[in-house]
Amino acid sequence: MKFKTIGIISPGDMGHVVGDVLRAGGLRVVACLDGRSPRTKALAQQAHLEDLGSVEAVVSEADAILSILVPAEAERAATAVATAMQQRGASLLYADCNAISPATTRLIGERIEAAGGRFVDASIIGPPPRRVGATRFYASGPHAGDLAALNDYGLHVIPIGERVGDASALKMCYAALTKGLTALSTELLVAAEALGITEPLQAEFRQSQSSMLAQMERGLPGMPPKARRWVGEMEEIASTFESVGLTPKILLGAADIYRFVGDTTLADRNPEDPGQPSLSDMIAQLAQHLR
Amino acid sequence: MKFKTIGIISPGDMGHVVGDVLRAGGLRVVACLDGRSPRTKALAQQAHLEDLGSVEAVVSEADAILSILVPAEAERAATAVATAMQQRGASLLYADCNAISPATTRLIGERIEAAGGRFVDASIIGPPPRRVGATRFYASGPHAGDLAALNDYGLHVIPIGERVGDASALKMCYAALTKGLTALSTELLVAAEALGITEPLQAEFRQSQSSMLAQMERGLPGMPPKARRWVGEMEEIASTFESVGLTPKILLGAADIYRFVGDTTLADRNPEDPGQPSLSDMIAQLAQHLR
Repeated sequence: MKFKTIGIISPGDMGHVVGDVLRAGGLRVVACLDGRSPRTKALAQQAHLEDLGSVEAVVSEADAILSILVPAEAERAATAVATAMQQRGASLLYADCNAISPATTRLIGERIEAAGGRFVDASIIGPPPRRVGATRFYASGPHAGDLAALNDYGLHVIPIGERVGDASALKMCYAALTKGLTALSTELLVAAEALGITEPLQAEFRQSQSSMLAQMERGLPGMPPKARRWVGEMEEIASTFESVGLTPKILLGAADIYRFVGDTTLADRNPEDPGQPSLSDMIAQLAQHLR
Repeated sequence: MKFKTIGIISPGDMGHVVGDVLRAGGLRVVACLDGRSPRTKALAQQAHLEDLGSVEAVVSEADAILSILVPAEAERAATAVATAMQQRGASLLYADCNAISPATTRLIGERIEAAGGRFVDASIIGPPPRRVGATRFYASGPHAGDLAALNDYGLHVIPIGERVGDASALKMCYAALTKGLTALSTELLVAAEALGITEPLQAEFRQSQSSMLAQMERGLPGMPPKARRWVGEMEEIASTFESVGLTPKILLGAADIYRFVGDTTLADRNPEDPGQPSLSDMIAQLAQHLR
């Protein structure tokens, strides 16, 4: 399978870097920025993506579309693409790369296939792929192999099987660890601050949990700008776990924590903004926001 | 403050080792084993503790009592000691070392003080203290310094302040990290198994989360024999977090996971039994137990 034109819906924090990589790799990369935020437009411009305005225009021009969005927008985007495909009689490869449950993914897949598209369940593990090898695109479903053609243009796509849902399931279980632990760590540090025992807890962590403490100091302060979009991801993981008979509560609690953080001004920063707070500043601000 | 006789309620997994340390350090260590399980009696005998039969007898003989129990038993034990103190006119130092919320601790403290005892809020971080330095007894409250006299007999007591509740709060926040992460890890691995993506998830973890994976392989298989008693501890942490305005759900979900594990035959082993399963065996057995 050969690609010439890739559509990116939407070129946000992750999407614009993916677009930039594919463009630098030699592909034409297009987007539909009508109605998107000034920030998304600025990111798309920064990555030199071509704005075709509407979803319909992207569907007409693209060989493949990568959907890279917050979870809550995944279904609406797929529906818009499916509608445009039916209107135009176009067919293309549609890879849903979002952090959504296998069940939501299968629903989206059915909608795309019913409109004549070829669906790939994809998921992204790692940061925006500014560095080669840092980020993996897992892909599953009958057309997963087709998406692997993007390996010739700078992405790292790993097909993991024929079953739609598997790439999403992989992302759900992986993010449960990383973002679940981030939520848990945030909660216990805020609780310690509110209870007035930060100092002895830090001393104990330095002694018996030094690598976990280092991980918190490195990872937590960068979280607040992403907290709002992680709420939906935690809820998708919760429903994934519930679907196999496990408790959804741990991940619903993680969603609560990201909602709480998202409700503070710490979440108003963008990831690229300077002036990231220290861990202790961040925790002190969150503790002040309680009640 | 000088001690001669210490009562241990009750010499279970943790308590009998603590008793053994203090006895080896030169103290008389007594217990009340009427109505305790054959296993607890065997552990007490193994640690050469002196069985006085009843709580009343221990209260008559001991200078200090260490309460080391599952969270659900902490309050009843304190009430029994308080009643015995009032009946005998005895006064002693009572250290509640259990994994309970600051609020439950304060309640117990008030009951002990009302009966004429001197209350210490204590909490244990680390394994049963078979090795010097592996385990810390945090202590808070006006009489915390008195408990530190046990440092002369082989324990490691760290007073952290005048406020009853602080030592318990420290334990709650610490255990949230260690046991919360254990529950989260167990859940996502069982979910991955149920979803049929264990193999690619393990491959991804080996690449990007190797130290977390190593921690799971090392730590998780020893958990099931402790799962049943950790249910109550998770609930105490949940109520601690809720008391400062944070979500209880993450820890209530952790309690759900330990309840689920406790419901399998994996939890029938004792920590000292041979034949611990590998991580993959354990996860496979848990996945079979779903629904």
